[in-house]
Amino acid sequence: MRVLGIDPGLRRLGWGIIDAEGSRLRHVANGVCESEGGDDLATRLLALHRQLTEVLTRFVPQIAAVEQTFVNKDAVGTLKLGQARGVALLVPAQFGLPVGEYAPNKVKKTVVGVGHADKRQIDHMVKMQLPGVQIAGPDAADALAIAICHAHHVGPQQARIRA
Amino acid sequence: MRVLGIDPGLRRLGWGIIDAEGSRLRHVANGVCESEGGDDLATRLLALHRQLTEVLTRFVPQIAAVEQTFVNKDAVGTLKLGQARGVALLVPAQFGLPVGEYAPNKVKKTVVGVGHADKRQIDHMVKMQLPGVQIAGPDAADALAIAICHAHHVGPQQARIRA
Repeated sequence: MRVLGIDPGLRRLGWGIIDAEGSRLRHVANGVCESEGGDDLATRLLALHRQLTEVLTRFVPQIAAVEQTFVNKDAVGTLKLGQARGVALLVPAQFGLPVGEYAPNKVKKTVVGVGHADKRQIDHMVKMQLPGVQIAGPDAADALAIAICHAHHVGPQQARIRA
Repeated sequence: MRVLGIDPGLRRLGWGIIDAEGSRLRHVANGVCESEGGDDLATRLLALHRQLTEVLTRFVPQIAAVEQTFVNKDAVGTLKLGQARGVALLVPAQFGLPVGEYAPNKVKKTVVGVGHADKRQIDHMVKMQLPGVQIAGPDAADALAIAICHAHHVGPQQARIRA
């Protein structure tokens, strides 16, 4: 089963795709959708929507999950993140995919074993679980971690349902 | 020139469309896109996207504006609103429309004459400026007010550019 993970953000939206067969994971692709800070908001969201739509068209994932960001910024930052997150949730739904949501601590606990892991630990464990992977930056690493987390939690269940 | 105004919200997203010829305004249509509270977030955003896409397909507005909501709720509420707002900005951009943003006070000041008007005043002034209009509720009234505001501010300019 092919799993898409998304780490939403307005400037940089990370994505990662893995194949999960039982407990075996294989890296498929990862990257970052970007929008230009100078453009107006609608144009930026359109750019993210187009890039993410290309990813789904090209790699055809079967299930998806998005990080359920708990925000500790100001209201303006939260609203911005929400807008990017809207696109991150919408695109997989437009492809008919069920979309899961995971809190960052849940992702960390699943991938690293503890809820308060730092970026380096996540990067390390993603590389351990996906040998040979080349990661397009921290946002893409987080997205792969979300995909791994989703594969662990709903993967086997969904596989049974679909079998 | 046909103007779309949007008052974003996850449960109820108001929309209103007017025709503006110079200072003359004419009501075209208004309504509310809705999503079910029980559905998962991606499904709700997809429902709003579909309904709003239908509105644009049917009424073919030329410019659009979305309320630039300043939030006084908690972070969870702000994030929810942001997600709905993402869809509200995205759909007109997908149709190639320029999308303006207005703070609520700016809308009120333009439509009612003061920045701190209440719902009833907005409703009253929208009805005054669009004689005979039937309004589908407060969210649709706000959306029509945003359309009127946008027609006043960029309407004549855009009309000149396009002439």
